[in-house]
Amino acid sequence: MIATPQSLHFAAKLPLQNGASLRDYSLSFETYGVLNEARSNAVLICHALNASHHVAGVYPGQDKSEGWWDNMIGPGKPLDTGKFFVIGVNNLGSCFGSTGPMHVNPDTGRIYGSDFPVLTVEDWVNAQARLLDVLGIETLAAVMGGSLGGMQALSWSLQYPTRVRHALVIASAPNLTAENIAFNEVARRAIQTDPDFHAGHFYQHGTVPKRGLRIARMIGHITYLSDDVMNEKFGRQLIAASQDDAQRDYFFSTLEAEFQIESYLRHQGDKFAEYFDANTYLLITRALDYFDPARKHAGNLSLALGRATAKFLLVSFTTDWRFSPKRSREIVKALLDNKRDVTYAEIAAPHGHDAFLLDDARYMGVVRSYFESVEVPT
Amino acid sequence: MIATPQSLHFAAKLPLQNGASLRDYSLSFETYGVLNEARSNAVLICHALNASHHVAGVYPGQDKSEGWWDNMIGPGKPLDTGKFFVIGVNNLGSCFGSTGPMHVNPDTGRIYGSDFPVLTVEDWVNAQARLLDVLGIETLAAVMGGSLGGMQALSWSLQYPTRVRHALVIASAPNLTAENIAFNEVARRAIQTDPDFHAGHFYQHGTVPKRGLRIARMIGHITYLSDDVMNEKFGRQLIAASQDDAQRDYFFSTLEAEFQIESYLRHQGDKFAEYFDANTYLLITRALDYFDPARKHAGNLSLALGRATAKFLLVSFTTDWRFSPKRSREIVKALLDNKRDVTYAEIAAPHGHDAFLLDDARYMGVVRSYFESVEVPT
Repeated sequence: MIATPQSLHFAAKLPLQNGASLRDYSLSFETYGVLNEARSNAVLICHALNASHHVAGVYPGQDKSEGWWDNMIGPGKPLDTGKFFVIGVNNLGSCFGSTGPMHVNPDTGRIYGSDFPVLTVEDWVNAQARLLDVLGIETLAAVMGGSLGGMQALSWSLQYPTRVRHALVIASAPNLTAENIAFNEVARRAIQTDPDFHAGHFYQHGTVPKRGLRIARMIGHITYLSDDVMNEKFGRQLIAASQDDAQRDYFFSTLEAEFQIESYLRHQGDKFAEYFDANTYLLITRALDYFDPARKHAGNLSLALGRATAKFLLVSFTTDWRFSPKRSREIVKALLDNKRDVTYAEIAAPHGHDAFLLDDARYMGVVRSYFESVEVPT
Repeated sequence: MIATPQSLHFAAKLPLQNGASLRDYSLSFETYGVLNEARSNAVLICHALNASHHVAGVYPGQDKSEGWWDNMIGPGKPLDTGKFFVIGVNNLGSCFGSTGPMHVNPDTGRIYGSDFPVLTVEDWVNAQARLLDVLGIETLAAVMGGSLGGMQALSWSLQYPTRVRHALVIASAPNLTAENIAFNEVARRAIQTDPDFHAGHFYQHGTVPKRGLRIARMIGHITYLSDDVMNEKFGRQLIAASQDDAQRDYFFSTLEAEFQIESYLRHQGDKFAEYFDANTYLLITRALDYFDPARKHAGNLSLALGRATAKFLLVSFTTDWRFSPKRSREIVKALLDNKRDVTYAEIAAPHGHDAFLLDDARYMGVVRSYFESVEVPT
């Protein structure tokens, strides 16, 4: 399946939750499959922290897909592009094509930097809805996302209840816990206190706060994996210790990586700092922190989800300690309190939060069955 | 109970596990209670990451103790100084009085900085044994510690089996998991990549890598608390929101602290960066990483603990995800495999790893009963 990135420009102001607005912005997106005549088979995919509109397929010349959900989406895959028209969209404020902090503010002629407005999940959903307007799609067969993407899917069902027939909310939560916020905050402080950050205007200084980005990514990575899978994959294995030499002496260094988990994390941090935008990291983690549909209902999630009319699939993974099954069950309960149609699968998977991106026969099977049941009116 | 810090100078070389040695070093310590004539009632307290020899009691003029285990140790307390002679010692490499990276290397006349040798739990225990030699204490009634201190207590029972009658290993582990090492590594990288670190020789630059220390402490703090206690204590409460104003608008800022958990962590980080030494942080976390008595026995902990002859009390706390009960049970099992005398208490406490420092009636009761059973030969 060949993927073709597209971009749409929006001149009109998008009012934002913080009271400001964005104008003259663009959204990058990709589509897979064919929109049927009734325009009833569209599925919108919402991405999580460091992903993009490139959800599936290959670009010309590639033999391996770099799409982040390529295992999920394609011809004959759980979300079958033979049946559905799938849309991947890069969110505003991201750093993969849609308008973000590294672009020029039309009001000032200068790069936004930290002046880019702080966006919310609700703002993203509003921007996605405008994209669908342009594509001529009134109603989504489904909206689907994992993690922060799952929050967007849930928010779609609340902001545009009549435009969503099914919402697939995977490895997600109705809001962040204090611990979740705490990890985000440490990552943000690492970036913001990096001298190369220059209060978010590092572009004009020709610097990148790579130190901070590295730390942010390392912290994030720890929380994406389960303790178990880390022990299985790395355990206490030393670097530069062959099978025959497992008992090599320690280096007795605080600076050199000694254990394989250390060099793995350093590598992940280095890679991330090369391509990810620091302001985007701040914005996206803040959108996570802020999401809390129950907030305007004094914390009553059942009351908050009363607006939703879609049918739901929720999936959680037993070893996910970032967005634990308990959090998905809160959503399930609140939907059931409203007598909504909910399917819930709790998958025993060892991979922690990352499981939502990985192949697991039961997980893929559940999503496949669910999409097989999604009707496509003609 | 009045505490009096003391210091002892050691001229003789202390051979270290990394092949180097330390000479002309001092150890800071405090003692509480009275050593009996038979010198049989001494209890050594080993400290964890950021603690010191000031374990209990007040300094003249103080009305509140700053001793980190003052709730545990004193007249009539679980470790009763009416019965026992208690010794608190600051470890080598620390920053509270004993010789560390901020002191002058007698071989060069320059401040050690990052040239201070990388120490291990075993090195600390050897230094503590020399202190006991000077104090004329051949055999300890007990050695006791929590977290990293528990590792030292366990190591005492292996390095000096005939000098320890009881070992109290609290909220500890036989080694760190990959996840534990990962958190340590992120904290170290935050410090080491702070431009003010100057490769560990920041003293002569007149700088302190406070940015890195703050991040390190924030990360540490998250792992000391349980998810539950964080939710209970902070939840999603906003700062500057009174009871009447719980629904104030978000600040919509990535820079300003928005949630109470954020300002709490920032405050903890700021405080820590004012008093803790960066090189000490690196050394102590590395000692944690390296501790692994089973290593020379191809990972067989039962084989490793065969050397121990002491009686043991192990305590763990259900919500401690840093050193979970599972890890304590590994030690219990290995000791039982050797038919050792072991008491084990798993305390249902909400406070995570920090629980070992807090008042909990059942925890304190278990330690009290245990010490009541410790015989003091005359």
